[in-house]
Amino acid sequence: MTGPIYLALVHHPVRGRGGDEITTSVTNLDVHDIARTARTYGIVRYYVVTPITAQRDLVNHILGYWRVGKGGERVPERTEALSIVEDVDSIEAAIAAITAREGRAPRVVTTAAKERAAATSFDALRAELAASDGPWLLMFGTGYGLADRVLDRADVHLAPVRPGGYNHLAVRSAVAIIIDRLLGDG
Amino acid sequence: MTGPIYLALVHHPVRGRGGDEITTSVTNLDVHDIARTARTYGIVRYYVVTPITAQRDLVNHILGYWRVGKGGERVPERTEALSIVEDVDSIEAAIAAITAREGRAPRVVTTAAKERAAATSFDALRAELAASDGPWLLMFGTGYGLADRVLDRADVHLAPVRPGGYNHLAVRSAVAIIIDRLLGDG
Repeated sequence: MTGPIYLALVHHPVRGRGGDEITTSVTNLDVHDIARTARTYGIVRYYVVTPITAQRDLVNHILGYWRVGKGGERVPERTEALSIVEDVDSIEAAIAAITAREGRAPRVVTTAAKERAAATSFDALRAELAASDGPWLLMFGTGYGLADRVLDRADVHLAPVRPGGYNHLAVRSAVAIIIDRLLGDG
Repeated sequence: MTGPIYLALVHHPVRGRGGDEITTSVTNLDVHDIARTARTYGIVRYYVVTPITAQRDLVNHILGYWRVGKGGERVPERTEALSIVEDVDSIEAAIAAITAREGRAPRVVTTAAKERAAATSFDALRAELAASDGPWLLMFGTGYGLADRVLDRADVHLAPVRPGGYNHLAVRSAVAIIIDRLLGDG
């Protein structure tokens, strides 16, 4: 059955290169690529999470071009993908928005490139999603990943895509692989 | 065992929106994201294929910044990913380069978002790769996909990631999903 699944790309709080807590910048490509992946796999909403007002304005500027501007005339399927994007100022705001839409709070899944104790395997979470009526929120960190205080609070923490060895996927690529493993036909 | 696997991102010949044969532009993000995915999954070389000299110069400008410029000091794992990138002027040149390195021509695999007769499933190709000593060349098209004359010539044509329904993944995302399905641990 698979209940409604939401996605959040978090720009704060995330880890910097040195492990300190930082706020990263929104990038145009993260908005586009992840919206296209999310739409392809039936994700309900894609929240771009940043506390910086000017960055949320940037997201809305991008969305405006495609939703009401000239982009949609040229590439209508891009408009369709971007229709599920929404900016919010915090993870709490994303959870509150989902709770308001669905009538109950989502189960929160966090992801990370590094190994962490008590991680859930892809097969186990895929089975859980398939058997659940949701809602779920899949969270991805920009920079060097979600802050520890976010990971500590998750209902489910997903195993890394590529344990051991070189593992420096772009967040756009990691989102694509993870969503496909959890929801794909492959 | 899995023999050596190569990847090519093709900017010509590819289809335009109307189905006509075009040459697309190289983008910085395609070079970076796909190099990071390719390096993560042990791809030997990633060929950026374009007949336009100025575009190959752009690729080399990007690579230079990371290989010998300041980028590598700041993010060494990015330099490692980009070390496998090479520009070539045609698909034939990529095949010739692989043949020279390996002592025999690669088996060529093409990919497409749209369904096509006689496609190989992901499971079947995954098994074939695992049992083969290679070499293999996985080809991805930019724009609206590889030209028909390229698809017609392939040894293996892979099934689409998402048959039916909305399917407008960025090529960066499609590469990540396909490589993970063929070579991932998941």
